[in-house]
Amino acid sequence: MSDTAAPTGRRTRGGGGAARRAERTAISVETARYIERNIPNFEVLTEEALQIIEDNAETVLEEIGVNFVENPAALERWREAGADVQGERVRIPRGLARKLCQTAPSSFTQHARNPERNVVIGGKNLVLAPVYGPPFVRTASGGRRYATMEDFRNFVKLGYMSKWLHHSGGTVCEPTDVPVNKRHYDMLLAHMTLSDKPFMGSVTEPSRAQDSVDMAGILFGEDFVRDNTVMTSLININSPLTFDGIMMGALEIYARNNQAAIISPFIVGGAMAPVSVAGTLTQVLAEVMAGVAYSQLVRAGAPVIFGAFVTSIDMNSGAPTFGTPEAAMITYGAGQLARRLGLPYRSAGSFCGSKLPDAQAAYETANSLNMGLLSGVNFMLHACGWLEGGLVASFEKFVMDADQLGIMHSMARGVDISENAQALDAIREVGPGGHYLGCAHTQANFKSAFWRSDLFDYKPFETWDEEGARDTEALASLRVKRLLDTYQQPTLDPAIEQALNDYVAERKAGMPDAFM
Amino acid sequence: MSDTAAPTGRRTRGGGGAARRAERTAISVETARYIERNIPNFEVLTEEALQIIEDNAETVLEEIGVNFVENPAALERWREAGADVQGERVRIPRGLARKLCQTAPSSFTQHARNPERNVVIGGKNLVLAPVYGPPFVRTASGGRRYATMEDFRNFVKLGYMSKWLHHSGGTVCEPTDVPVNKRHYDMLLAHMTLSDKPFMGSVTEPSRAQDSVDMAGILFGEDFVRDNTVMTSLININSPLTFDGIMMGALEIYARNNQAAIISPFIVGGAMAPVSVAGTLTQVLAEVMAGVAYSQLVRAGAPVIFGAFVTSIDMNSGAPTFGTPEAAMITYGAGQLARRLGLPYRSAGSFCGSKLPDAQAAYETANSLNMGLLSGVNFMLHACGWLEGGLVASFEKFVMDADQLGIMHSMARGVDISENAQALDAIREVGPGGHYLGCAHTQANFKSAFWRSDLFDYKPFETWDEEGARDTEALASLRVKRLLDTYQQPTLDPAIEQALNDYVAERKAGMPDAFM
Repeated sequence: MSDTAAPTGRRTRGGGGAARRAERTAISVETARYIERNIPNFEVLTEEALQIIEDNAETVLEEIGVNFVENPAALERWREAGADVQGERVRIPRGLARKLCQTAPSSFTQHARNPERNVVIGGKNLVLAPVYGPPFVRTASGGRRYATMEDFRNFVKLGYMSKWLHHSGGTVCEPTDVPVNKRHYDMLLAHMTLSDKPFMGSVTEPSRAQDSVDMAGILFGEDFVRDNTVMTSLININSPLTFDGIMMGALEIYARNNQAAIISPFIVGGAMAPVSVAGTLTQVLAEVMAGVAYSQLVRAGAPVIFGAFVTSIDMNSGAPTFGTPEAAMITYGAGQLARRLGLPYRSAGSFCGSKLPDAQAAYETANSLNMGLLSGVNFMLHACGWLEGGLVASFEKFVMDADQLGIMHSMARGVDISENAQALDAIREVGPGGHYLGCAHTQANFKSAFWRSDLFDYKPFETWDEEGARDTEALASLRVKRLLDTYQQPTLDPAIEQALNDYVAERKAGMPDAFM
Repeated sequence: MSDTAAPTGRRTRGGGGAARRAERTAISVETARYIERNIPNFEVLTEEALQIIEDNAETVLEEIGVNFVENPAALERWREAGADVQGERVRIPRGLARKLCQTAPSSFTQHARNPERNVVIGGKNLVLAPVYGPPFVRTASGGRRYATMEDFRNFVKLGYMSKWLHHSGGTVCEPTDVPVNKRHYDMLLAHMTLSDKPFMGSVTEPSRAQDSVDMAGILFGEDFVRDNTVMTSLININSPLTFDGIMMGALEIYARNNQAAIISPFIVGGAMAPVSVAGTLTQVLAEVMAGVAYSQLVRAGAPVIFGAFVTSIDMNSGAPTFGTPEAAMITYGAGQLARRLGLPYRSAGSFCGSKLPDAQAAYETANSLNMGLLSGVNFMLHACGWLEGGLVASFEKFVMDADQLGIMHSMARGVDISENAQALDAIREVGPGGHYLGCAHTQANFKSAFWRSDLFDYKPFETWDEEGARDTEALASLRVKRLLDTYQQPTLDPAIEQALNDYVAERKAGMPDAFM
């Protein structure tokens, strides 16, 4: 896989003797380059179906409209843009939202503090980021419990050490032992100091989004942040058709600062959208067009991503279900709609409803990861570690999923049809009844020929049995421990680290704890 | 799913009072109709790549040739057809094999004794059959052990009761407690009497293939078997490029009797084929063309399937690996080659290397099942129950995989774009900030809207925890027991059943036990 792997040498801006000393002793952590697809997208909607859905989405925006809640400035922007605003309801004339979306870039670079780990989001690319948001964690040894800041830091470390993960993510779990109004400081500090991969900012308050921009300014330099995108943050829409003031406030901060936002309906089909695929796609498109259009009203050219978190519901229990065929159809279809809108696309992930990292979890997750690759997703949040409908971040599942992400890297390369790959000479050399194990072509190519799991068991039955007949979760536990035991912090200019710590300490000082 | 489900009423030929009484008390066993795809195939090879591979395959057949081992009649047939035969080596002039393949049908019906369960193999269809060949079985309670005839019968019962399985398969496990030369009688008897789904015949000796045809004659009537295909059997090629006399002898029996055969390279890439995707596809195509062409020399018009059992190897341990990206690329590519040859296509399955029905098994299996659906497979052998690289048939995994097969049925339907599915009125009714749970559209559509697993856990965490925090394997164990406990034999004319039993008893009588 050497063709996809970036070296780990980093270039700090500035940095003193301590940084150089640390650099000399740091172990190599290999990270694959983000995926560039050399395979087609799988498309399930015909041209006619696409036109019907696009036309219906315009009807939704024009006739029904969307609500921008507790956000007079947004209503004013929409009024000026030509929408019909009545109370908090914004009705958008046919074609206006799509037109406004045109100023959003089809692709953008998110910079990491290690430039080797920059990612380009859009086009044929796929960038993989870990799970986001669970209030609980699960470990094989300790079971399920509320997540803490120590868990958070451990997930950031695992993400940093995961070869196939390109992005450090955001709220990899909710550190419930830290007051809500102070969490974002500790979370950002962890991403900025424990990893050198790109990361996400806070969205739970506009002021916390501003803190994220300010801390990024310390890490990257304010000038750099002014001119470059260094965060991609998650802005959820309150489906159906509602944009709340807090999320939009965060979006406004990021858009104004040229920082990227995923604008994403959060839909459990049957609850927040119709039970049908076509109906859900209509609503998703209407919501994303309204949200992206709004981002462009705040700042034309602000980088945004067409998000679609969409799953189905179990009508018996009311639980969200994952890895289902309806979710797959919506994910494939939304990819087509995003490409026609010229926007990067976010969907899919290591989704599952299972309580344990067992077979159910793996079936559901593999279904979702496969559709994510083939549907043309550009940014995959939750690509590893998701458990129990997103309530739980699982340490074992994090490394299990992260291992599976390697498959996508090989798949995306497509089929090599070079003369070497055609292997006619090998077939000649071996002939009928022979074998290829020792032939010249095999010797020359076997090292890069086949993707290999770093986690799964490939041993003979007897060896596996003697070694304790371990299942995947047990193997994953060992891997989690080994990764955390060998983790070494990537070097960072100590002056920058100090400035970040000072900023956080200063902001926290005297701030009363709050729990929302 | 009522649109895919066939009623279970059966029509016997003849049948007396006992049959009618049994029919009245039989419980309903629902089986879905075979899948008809309303979605495109996923294709990874460009037109140029396809032409290169096809051209190279002709070069392989012409320059290198294939061996037909211990089969003078085959050599004679090839000589007459215009091939260059030297010793056992058959070199086939450019274009001849492809031309001979043209008489094979692109689609055929395999009849079941219950005509509601007939399957059409080819075109946009997908027929699902269970695991084939493992000498071991595994149960959650008893671990791994040699398979017995009782296991075999239990797998046939499970297959009969699995809604998403269209086919009873063949050697669902090897009944190692029965002598090799008598096994096929007991296996055929089990498929013919314990299930009413279509099944496969024996291929381990030409005489056993003939026994299969004879027993089918008793079950269906000899006239019926003469005019119709009632078995689809598995003829493996000894890759690379070798056709052994026993397998070809079985193929000759089936082809002459108008019974179907899957003609299938069995390839662990790096051992039986080059380590590259393009090289493996070249060899697969050459082998299948030679095998199919030979079937047409035996009887033009004999129904055959383009088979491709292809996986990769772990170059560290030498073990075959499953659910890998290279296997996926080969499966997608071989589907394109099969369609260009105008033949039904067999590939993919519940493949995994794991020793247990755990997360590894499920990731690998889901990867393979997903590619099977999207690659255009028409007949999927091993669609459920495969474990440990095919050494083991797992009872728990059988029902786990069989449940997942339901997803394919929904996926294949594609996206409904009817006015009802567009759901504009539902979006109007609910509006911004509402919810869809009670709206008219949801009430009218929720029952058929979402696929739902019959096995997985969708309960709230607390309920699941109180009920014993069971993992998927534990839930699957319960399901295996429940299915076997409630199994009822489908009705069969007692005269036919008696004739089958008599045939088997007569053939076995005086036959010395043999173990190969």
